[in-house]
Amino acid sequence: MGIVALAGGIGAAKLLEGLYAELGEDLTIIVNVGDDDTFFGLKVSPDLDIITYTLGGIIDPARRWGLADETFKCIAALGTYYPETWFNLGDKDLATHIFRTDRLNQGKSLAEVSHEIAHKLGLSCTILPATNDIVQTKLYTSQGVLDFEEYFVKFRAGVPVTKIDYRGAADAVPTPGVLETIARAERVIICPSNPMLSIAPILAVPGIRAAVAARRDTTIAVTPIIQGDAVKGPTAHLFRELGYDVNPLGVVDYYGADLFAHFVVDARDEDLLLELSPDRFPLPVNFTMFDTLMVDFGKRLELAKYLLQYPI
Amino acid sequence: MGIVALAGGIGAAKLLEGLYAELGEDLTIIVNVGDDDTFFGLKVSPDLDIITYTLGGIIDPARRWGLADETFKCIAALGTYYPETWFNLGDKDLATHIFRTDRLNQGKSLAEVSHEIAHKLGLSCTILPATNDIVQTKLYTSQGVLDFEEYFVKFRAGVPVTKIDYRGAADAVPTPGVLETIARAERVIICPSNPMLSIAPILAVPGIRAAVAARRDTTIAVTPIIQGDAVKGPTAHLFRELGYDVNPLGVVDYYGADLFAHFVVDARDEDLLLELSPDRFPLPVNFTMFDTLMVDFGKRLELAKYLLQYPI
Repeated sequence: MGIVALAGGIGAAKLLEGLYAELGEDLTIIVNVGDDDTFFGLKVSPDLDIITYTLGGIIDPARRWGLADETFKCIAALGTYYPETWFNLGDKDLATHIFRTDRLNQGKSLAEVSHEIAHKLGLSCTILPATNDIVQTKLYTSQGVLDFEEYFVKFRAGVPVTKIDYRGAADAVPTPGVLETIARAERVIICPSNPMLSIAPILAVPGIRAAVAARRDTTIAVTPIIQGDAVKGPTAHLFRELGYDVNPLGVVDYYGADLFAHFVVDARDEDLLLELSPDRFPLPVNFTMFDTLMVDFGKRLELAKYLLQYPI
Repeated sequence: MGIVALAGGIGAAKLLEGLYAELGEDLTIIVNVGDDDTFFGLKVSPDLDIITYTLGGIIDPARRWGLADETFKCIAALGTYYPETWFNLGDKDLATHIFRTDRLNQGKSLAEVSHEIAHKLGLSCTILPATNDIVQTKLYTSQGVLDFEEYFVKFRAGVPVTKIDYRGAADAVPTPGVLETIARAERVIICPSNPMLSIAPILAVPGIRAAVAARRDTTIAVTPIIQGDAVKGPTAHLFRELGYDVNPLGVVDYYGADLFAHFVVDARDEDLLLELSPDRFPLPVNFTMFDTLMVDFGKRLELAKYLLQYPI
């Protein structure tokens, strides 16, 4: 049985800390690979690493990505050979990318390598990339069609987006175990990640959206938008640019009410629920409130417990 | 025209500093690739890097390999994923291996990549790997058949060797330009590298030994053995283990007198020449003496000038 969480990177990691503390090996995390990219010939999987490093207790606590006590000597030296080194890779972090690249070149799947990395870091939960195939989140902007990392790091998410697509998704196959785990899970949790950049590339892999929708009654999503803004990242202005309300209701509109029956709004947005019309969505969604800001580990654990105990 | 030097790594680099200062773009260096290996999926070319870093003025002055002001964070982190991390790669140095691997995987030849690296480091001389193919120096020992780096780094050159071979050499092709450059050079200099581990793998590539021998009259070798020992490295005990005299005459025996007509013995070994019988070798070799220890840049330049002006 167990619990399944759909997750991106930074937005999901805090909640996953709480869920992992509660569940250990009973937690399966299905992770976005739409941000994955190749830099200097090295295969980088940002969301997988953020989650693995966070749960392994070695994440940089200020940046919330990369490793604590990191140095950046190699990336500086790479500037001798490459014209662009805007994607900042720490010296210790590079070891993970070197290992991943080496194993993938030996014919291992991304899921196998991710399992090895999680195992080496001592994690007992299951971490599955949504697919072993390549899915690339592409953002259409005035600067052209950008890869996620170009958009997010090089342009600091500062250029307006007119369209997003998940290139390769239509031909991708879910990682073995993903559909089965969703089908058998006690409940499915959609983490407070960026819906368009982190969760949608997972759902775009054929079969995954339908598998979650089939578990609609036991699926709970957590809002990534609190009081009209995201805790971190470009969620709010992407919603605005692409024509959605920048509030939890816009999040439900974007996902579609067929995906989940339960939605956690931050307690700070209580007013929104008071005015909510019962026929606002084509299918009824149970809204509930909790503190979703998760400022410390105690708050992460509280939200995790709430999601696990919430009556469905 | 110009000057060609056959070179390994540390033993050659001092002399090459002097030759490069004198010759600049008129110097072509043909470099051993028998020590090349793959670590963590990264292609490492120790001798090419030692030479490029030395001539680029960025070599670590104490170790005489790797880069100055180096840190070793990534290799420590690689220990999380790999059981063996005895091959110590600095964080800045890794940038070179990452770049080389990336380019080779894109289909570039080792010669093309080596040219790019030399160019990025601002070098004007030509640096050519002996071959673009894989040649691996294998040492037969009581610990089994070892790769060069296993023998040299992991076992600290501390196990007796019964045989050496240059695997792949018979099927290797000289890098384009190597044979032509040797044929047209004003003179050919064999650097004071380890004959068995550094120069022999170059000569083992079909065509190269014959090309040098065809220029015997204008080829000068410099002894790597001074007063019964090598300045650095395992040359002396390899010579002993494989049945050669541990002195400059043993070096000529090993190379074969057909390869060069001129040989520079260190001035400290003057006695050896006084007792030398004229028919000691099957072909006459002109022995000459100079200070070959090269303790500082001035001495390196002096030896370089001597080799360039020596009447042949």
